[in-house]
Amino acid sequence: MKNNRLVVIGGDAAGMAAASKVRRMQPDREIVVFERTDYSSYSACGMPYQIAGLVEKADNLIVRSPERFREKLSIDMQMQHEVVAIDRDKQRVEVVDRNNGTSRYEPYDQLLVATGARPFCPDISGELADGIFGLSTLASGIKIQKFLTDNRPQKAVIVGGGYIGLEMAEALVRQKLDVSLVQRGEQVMETLDPDMGKLVSEALEEIGVKLYRKEELRGFETNEKQVTAVVTDRRTLPADIVILGMGTRPNSGLAKDAGLELTIKDAIKVDEQMNTSCDNIWAAGDCAASRHRLTEEEVHISLGTIANKQGLVAGTNIGGGSAIFPGVIGTAVSKICSIEVARTGLQEKELDRLGWKYVSATIEAKTRAGYFPGAGPITVKLLAEKRSGRLFGGQIVGDCCSAKRIDTVATALTAGMSVEDLIGLDLGYAPPFSPVWDPVQTAARALIKEI
Amino acid sequence: MKNNRLVVIGGDAAGMAAASKVRRMQPDREIVVFERTDYSSYSACGMPYQIAGLVEKADNLIVRSPERFREKLSIDMQMQHEVVAIDRDKQRVEVVDRNNGTSRYEPYDQLLVATGARPFCPDISGELADGIFGLSTLASGIKIQKFLTDNRPQKAVIVGGGYIGLEMAEALVRQKLDVSLVQRGEQVMETLDPDMGKLVSEALEEIGVKLYRKEELRGFETNEKQVTAVVTDRRTLPADIVILGMGTRPNSGLAKDAGLELTIKDAIKVDEQMNTSCDNIWAAGDCAASRHRLTEEEVHISLGTIANKQGLVAGTNIGGGSAIFPGVIGTAVSKICSIEVARTGLQEKELDRLGWKYVSATIEAKTRAGYFPGAGPITVKLLAEKRSGRLFGGQIVGDCCSAKRIDTVATALTAGMSVEDLIGLDLGYAPPFSPVWDPVQTAARALIKEI
Repeated sequence: MKNNRLVVIGGDAAGMAAASKVRRMQPDREIVVFERTDYSSYSACGMPYQIAGLVEKADNLIVRSPERFREKLSIDMQMQHEVVAIDRDKQRVEVVDRNNGTSRYEPYDQLLVATGARPFCPDISGELADGIFGLSTLASGIKIQKFLTDNRPQKAVIVGGGYIGLEMAEALVRQKLDVSLVQRGEQVMETLDPDMGKLVSEALEEIGVKLYRKEELRGFETNEKQVTAVVTDRRTLPADIVILGMGTRPNSGLAKDAGLELTIKDAIKVDEQMNTSCDNIWAAGDCAASRHRLTEEEVHISLGTIANKQGLVAGTNIGGGSAIFPGVIGTAVSKICSIEVARTGLQEKELDRLGWKYVSATIEAKTRAGYFPGAGPITVKLLAEKRSGRLFGGQIVGDCCSAKRIDTVATALTAGMSVEDLIGLDLGYAPPFSPVWDPVQTAARALIKEI
Repeated sequence: MKNNRLVVIGGDAAGMAAASKVRRMQPDREIVVFERTDYSSYSACGMPYQIAGLVEKADNLIVRSPERFREKLSIDMQMQHEVVAIDRDKQRVEVVDRNNGTSRYEPYDQLLVATGARPFCPDISGELADGIFGLSTLASGIKIQKFLTDNRPQKAVIVGGGYIGLEMAEALVRQKLDVSLVQRGEQVMETLDPDMGKLVSEALEEIGVKLYRKEELRGFETNEKQVTAVVTDRRTLPADIVILGMGTRPNSGLAKDAGLELTIKDAIKVDEQMNTSCDNIWAAGDCAASRHRLTEEEVHISLGTIANKQGLVAGTNIGGGSAIFPGVIGTAVSKICSIEVARTGLQEKELDRLGWKYVSATIEAKTRAGYFPGAGPITVKLLAEKRSGRLFGGQIVGDCCSAKRIDTVATALTAGMSVEDLIGLDLGYAPPFSPVWDPVQTAARALIKEI
């Protein structure tokens, strides 16, 4: 195994999950990781909460430091090293040592591309000025924090109402900034149907976020390279700091240049074993595509849990084992202010696009027995195939202990269960946890009348 | 429909779920409910929390009063009426009006037996003295409260460490009583494997409950008809109040006398449509048996959620529709002090009895991302079939937001999923809700190594 060198590009979730798995399977193998920042294996998803002041310091988000990987797993962690090219013919990568700017070639026998994603920004005029931030890496989170401390901005504009946008809106409200949010669609959180997204929009407004819906970003105004305003198709919003929350795009330029096949949103195309289109090259995490288990289509979803799973699968296969990544169904949960939001499966606009006939029902219930202290509102929407009743998707907005109920829907949906099957499930009931009918089953009972 | 008289015996969860369903299906039908207490459709499961002081008054536990059933659903609610005999030949029941002690016959065309369950008490010498209580009805809960207020007992002994026993132990500790608990088995909560039950035993001891494990009830000592002590095979425990928490038995005497077939623990035998062995007679709720979806055996489980589901199925079929109760898998959740407890499927002793080969794994994780405020410990145990990896059961003990994760296991298990399938599920992840691998998936990852 000494001559079977594994090179991993990217030292976060997918890359390190894979490298760690290979190490456990092949104790003597040479494993090198090139990471362009100073940080390995961290929780980027934790950054909004850290900026909000809920997590004491950014270091707490680091699951395992480069030193730990070196010491405990004998993984050669090359920090501040950026891979700038993949030379497939010679099975080597070109690496720039960012400490001194020198470049060198490093050979590989097997290569894992785990380059992650970056915040999406539409093609607008002018360079991105100071004070405009995305949030996709620990380094970018630390930059935002430094900016908040050094510049004491007062007016924040969030562009885009996805998970990161909303979590950052809350974080900056907590930090006493005056926060506006520009949203292209009818409601924030467009992974929900508009009727459910409306509940989230309302919750944001309740904590004082100024919402500008159905407005498109046109550009930024700047003064001496510092952003001063966000310009939309309808107004100019003064801004001392801007957060881009319009989703992410795969960091797949490197892979593309090397001739690896790309797919949806330029994510790297992979098979179930995380093989790319090229021999001896795997990809995993936010830079790679996933297969949607319901539609069989390729999708690009940036999420730590998917990156970890893909990394584990890639690592198992690279390490000589056999594993398959079964795909995703678009499950996501989020906490915005005091409300919890969750979704899984397909939403109305996706079903419309696919031309799949569906029915839906939305119910309001309580998170606990109505008389139990802390029983709060929960709204559940379910979607299912017309006639067969096969579950297509679910969405939840509610108080504490609402969101993770989506896992029941996600599991049932993955199993191909119908609405009737869901009603028949023996779910946990006791007054502190649920009404006698779990809210997802109450929704199913409403939905079955529509089928 | 005027001549098609439905008589329901018992006005709690199953009976009223059925009666309400029939009313919605058949607006003109005559529906009579005989209930021997003053209360209809209440949450008996809420009583321990009410006694604990968490729920202001017992009335809050009433989902719908007899008046509401009369007014809104035109159901003839005969309160304080006890059915003492079923005369199948003449299709009538004998009813005693407890207000005046008079007896009369009431005809039925269809009959639903929903007589519930009662606390189990082993056959011990002597009458049950004052101060000894079970907790199966709202009336019994109100009696306990009255006793607590009138008699100001100081020493409580709970006999039996099931859900009711443990919830009452906590309730009485909250009411500042000195609480002992006598448990026949090695650990409390024998629906968990002993290693998981141990965690619950420890939590109880932490709040000050004195545990006497592996001790059997022999009898009670009394003074002027008032209980003064609980006698076990190893000691005599002084007691001003005693709570029986040794599980329940179906109230099936009436059904038995009428010649209805009984089964496990004398529960009324029913088919999937809730038909009993006799024409025109249905049974539902705590008095009836259920089919276990994994073992296909009949089981008796007293739970409000099952009673509601069975009632709905019975009502649908009585009302001329078609519905099936698919059975149970033994899912249960409970909150004892600050810890949450959950279980589903089969435990080790059941698998041993069945001779089914199994493997198990237990892991400790966190309820949220480790760095997120409020991340607490959670222990998850999973059991699966040896070789095939098909899920057999799961058990959870942990902090806030632990218990309802059992629903994921329950759903996966019902779908016949394997441990590998569980690992592949796309479950909700965000730092406030879960580590990147949900704890049930972390348990699955540990278990897959054992298969």
